[in-house]
Amino acid sequence: MIQNHEYWMAKAIKQAQKGLYSTHPNPRVGCVIVKDGELLGQGYHVRAGEGHAEVNALADAKSRGNQDITGATAYVTLEPCSHHGKTPPCADALIKAGISCLVYGMQDPNPEVSGNGLKRIAKAGIEVVGPILKAQCEALNPGFIKRMREGLPFIRVKLAMSVDGRTAMESGESQWITGPNARQDVQRLRAQSDAVVTGIGSVLADNPSMTVRIDHNDQPVDAKTVRQPLRVVMDTALSILPDAKILFPTQQACVFCVEEEVESEHLDLLQERGVRVRFANRGEDGRLDLLTTMEQLADDGINEVLVETGAELAGGFLQAGLVDEIVVYMAPKLLGSSARPMFQLPLDTMAEALDLELKSVRQVGQDVRLVYVPQYLEYDDGLLDIDEWGVAQDA
Amino acid sequence: MIQNHEYWMAKAIKQAQKGLYSTHPNPRVGCVIVKDGELLGQGYHVRAGEGHAEVNALADAKSRGNQDITGATAYVTLEPCSHHGKTPPCADALIKAGISCLVYGMQDPNPEVSGNGLKRIAKAGIEVVGPILKAQCEALNPGFIKRMREGLPFIRVKLAMSVDGRTAMESGESQWITGPNARQDVQRLRAQSDAVVTGIGSVLADNPSMTVRIDHNDQPVDAKTVRQPLRVVMDTALSILPDAKILFPTQQACVFCVEEEVESEHLDLLQERGVRVRFANRGEDGRLDLLTTMEQLADDGINEVLVETGAELAGGFLQAGLVDEIVVYMAPKLLGSSARPMFQLPLDTMAEALDLELKSVRQVGQDVRLVYVPQYLEYDDGLLDIDEWGVAQDA
Repeated sequence: MIQNHEYWMAKAIKQAQKGLYSTHPNPRVGCVIVKDGELLGQGYHVRAGEGHAEVNALADAKSRGNQDITGATAYVTLEPCSHHGKTPPCADALIKAGISCLVYGMQDPNPEVSGNGLKRIAKAGIEVVGPILKAQCEALNPGFIKRMREGLPFIRVKLAMSVDGRTAMESGESQWITGPNARQDVQRLRAQSDAVVTGIGSVLADNPSMTVRIDHNDQPVDAKTVRQPLRVVMDTALSILPDAKILFPTQQACVFCVEEEVESEHLDLLQERGVRVRFANRGEDGRLDLLTTMEQLADDGINEVLVETGAELAGGFLQAGLVDEIVVYMAPKLLGSSARPMFQLPLDTMAEALDLELKSVRQVGQDVRLVYVPQYLEYDDGLLDIDEWGVAQDA
Repeated sequence: MIQNHEYWMAKAIKQAQKGLYSTHPNPRVGCVIVKDGELLGQGYHVRAGEGHAEVNALADAKSRGNQDITGATAYVTLEPCSHHGKTPPCADALIKAGISCLVYGMQDPNPEVSGNGLKRIAKAGIEVVGPILKAQCEALNPGFIKRMREGLPFIRVKLAMSVDGRTAMESGESQWITGPNARQDVQRLRAQSDAVVTGIGSVLADNPSMTVRIDHNDQPVDAKTVRQPLRVVMDTALSILPDAKILFPTQQACVFCVEEEVESEHLDLLQERGVRVRFANRGEDGRLDLLTTMEQLADDGINEVLVETGAELAGGFLQAGLVDEIVVYMAPKLLGSSARPMFQLPLDTMAEALDLELKSVRQVGQDVRLVYVPQYLEYDDGLLDIDEWGVAQDA
């Protein structure tokens, strides 16, 4: 019988997607167990500290009465782990369960452990096949992968703008540019992010809470599993008011500032209230060094960052070469030529223009949602080589 | 046998579309003649002075050997004419041919003659049915309809911009913002326009020729039938150079200026060379009164105007409430916050923001093409009532 690996891997991906709003800092992973063309069990990693996808799929098989999975094939979107973390290694669980074949979507993105889980399984005499639907499996975890490979989170800048590229009136007035469907879509972007970043200007102007408000009807994800992202404020001189809404609850908030420029009494007051204040330097351009702030977030296990801010800070991220993706919601209105720009980004000639790659375009209510990738981001994909030799040598 | 009127009207519309680039100042009209569910003949109006759609469809029927069309049904996208113009009335031709039923898409948009063709046919004892697929039939001729109803052309503003809503660098540099597919699409917009309007600023800066360059592979239209649009320059003080490319050939060009502000020697020089110079006043806002220029063009039989110009003049059209449609080609790049705006349009509060209605969005190469309708344009559709009672009373 010909096994359709892509068909079953797609089912495993569908499982993994259920963890979109909850697994971080862990990756989203899905697993299905199949024998003789029949699904025996499936599962996904729900949240850190709980069972991994493989273990959940094995448990699901049992609960369906499929006690014996000897000779089955397991499809996993990500290479099974081979180390003892909060849970025992999944590689061992699969070996013990008696599967005869493992099909994986992508290797572990951490170059230091990549391939170890596959080797362990192959050494147990189990056939290892993959990568299958690698691009789709990678798309599940852009942040986790980037953090493992580069020590940086995946940084997405979200902007709501008018057709003429304006994000606010000259006065700062900006509510509401986009319609309700686009605003609900932004909630989903927030929910899949580990951290939401904004600037002190937005905080002082609008006093936003920046929590996730996900509709209970928002399929396929159960609203109850949504993990609130860390709320991060870029605030060089630490001007934030101690009662700013964005700081509460304080265990899910942090403020970046330049230590030397901070009034110590204000710092003490904030820290007494439980606000986490972190430090970064000023970069060569005189701004807060955004690169080091992002590195600190990655060290804390932040996979995906959503930047929701004004033209100044958004322009700073762009100019620092830190932006992986720009999500634009374009509303059907003209705010006029005095209104604020999309990015504070002074350029003189067409040759300096920043090229983007259009990734997707779709209508959201009366707004248009566009996803672009800045073209300065052409880093090497360090995993490609490993995937090419890894399994072939060991199998 | 049940006749599917919409099926055959759609075929007639397809015929009419073949005249997209050639029929102006006449409307695009298609006709199919059907009997017992069989197509006997079809035709469309190719260009002014030549046969109308009905006559061409009758001729086509003959050439196919269908000499006798007695008892057939004629489907026409626009009410047949009842007056002697360059050709005899089509209503008479259909009566004479012996059809037993006429299905029409929309009535004549000229309120003074609307319904006369249908009455003439109904009086001859022929069944009259309609309007069928009225919206689609109207969409064939936005310019002709607006000119007949309001004495103004349909005005489309085309803009090529970056994602951040910029149409040129601060220096004016703007070639090329969009990609080759978008630029070819603009050629199609030009080809379906009766006139292309630009400002003296663009002419002095780029010396464009603004002719239509349609690819011979551009289906479904035969490139040989394309009629070059009138090229119109808005040039208050008549500063255009006598050898500006846009003026040649001179019979297809005209320049609008304010008579009192023109140097008479320069005017004479241009007129000697055959350039048509026309006059308008300054409006209350100190600009050239665009409304009167558009009325003059409508009087000359201009149905559709394409405005291809910089932020200043485009903003003038918008502020004058003259824009029926904005076609935006959005290129995947950021030109930065010093670059030139989409429209020169100074607004202070969100309440003043100009609302647009999104009509369509699609990808064109790496660019995105968006069509918007400014929401100040909610004029009464004077024909609606006539269509509702017209035929019902006469049939």
